[in-house]
Amino acid sequence: MPKPLTFWFEFASTYSYLSAMRIEAACAKRGVALQWKPFLLGPVFAQNGWADSPFNLFPVKGANMWRDMQRQCARMDLPLTRPSQFPRNGLLAARVACAHADRAWIGAFVRGVYLANFGADRDISDPAVIASILTDIGQDDAAVLAAAQSEAAKLALRQQTETAIESGLFGAPTFAVGDEVFWGNDRLDDAIDWACNPINI
Amino acid sequence: MPKPLTFWFEFASTYSYLSAMRIEAACAKRGVALQWKPFLLGPVFAQNGWADSPFNLFPVKGANMWRDMQRQCARMDLPLTRPSQFPRNGLLAARVACAHADRAWIGAFVRGVYLANFGADRDISDPAVIASILTDIGQDDAAVLAAAQSEAAKLALRQQTETAIESGLFGAPTFAVGDEVFWGNDRLDDAIDWACNPINI
Repeated sequence: MPKPLTFWFEFASTYSYLSAMRIEAACAKRGVALQWKPFLLGPVFAQNGWADSPFNLFPVKGANMWRDMQRQCARMDLPLTRPSQFPRNGLLAARVACAHADRAWIGAFVRGVYLANFGADRDISDPAVIASILTDIGQDDAAVLAAAQSEAAKLALRQQTETAIESGLFGAPTFAVGDEVFWGNDRLDDAIDWACNPINI
Repeated sequence: MPKPLTFWFEFASTYSYLSAMRIEAACAKRGVALQWKPFLLGPVFAQNGWADSPFNLFPVKGANMWRDMQRQCARMDLPLTRPSQFPRNGLLAARVACAHADRAWIGAFVRGVYLANFGADRDISDPAVIASILTDIGQDDAAVLAAAQSEAAKLALRQQTETAIESGLFGAPTFAVGDEVFWGNDRLDDAIDWACNPINI
């Protein structure tokens, strides 16, 4: 029986986009239960003394990342429009996802947000954009947004981000299978393999 | 006709080890000519204000990297002994490799150095260790070491490292096919694919 896999993601993260678009299908194919855990990278990066994305702080690395994203999206047949703001504020989307992580529509919502940000350069910090994504997947946007902006939902996301830091997360996406932590979209398949057949090392 | 692929590597770099052990065979299989370009990461990292490896400066990232190396080496059936000094000083080995990059034995030498450092925790900054690796692959260790320690060889490595920085390299391993730059062991197969069939994006 495969172990469950936790998907830690941040809506502003480019490589989280690549994972988010395929993780639900990839886990289902192997019988791996998937837990969606949005968090905020800002407080994580602040621990390194960074007030911005490392892709902005280290421009040669950033330039390589954007070119790599073009290549990866071409391989995966995913749309890519470089967002006019990077990193985009994903706080509202993360609150929605955190408050509804167990709902059947969570995967469709997460993919909708990533496609809006990285596929269409829409401002995902705008409640109207989030509302339209919710409507597109058949949800009551007013009720979902109200729940996501409650004090309990705000606190839940803050606590989840603190848990991420305490667990030694330093970037996104990150995949956890029990105590085993895999960083980066390039490790998604390894993480799923591990959930099915952990190696004794 | 495939384009040639340039392999930029640093002997202290963990993920360069994973690439170095398979790149020659992987390129040969696809008919891709391989250019070996050792360089030093120290001057590259200094540009970010780092006086040490980011894996030491950011310990949670470092801990994840060493665990990831255990997993990757297990998958690739490569030996891994965490070096008692990290990063190890690879200057002498890089001078040897830079001065002899076109020799038929370059691949065997590079693999020998990586296995000594990451497989057996031998001090690759010790000329006796480098001499033994050269002897193991049938070379005249005294002649090769003398050539590597000439002023011309020292200058050549310095210039190669400057070229790396000017080309926008920020880590190792890096693979270049013309102007197309791929960073990280996880991109080796993509880089070889690109050498054979570049995508028009």
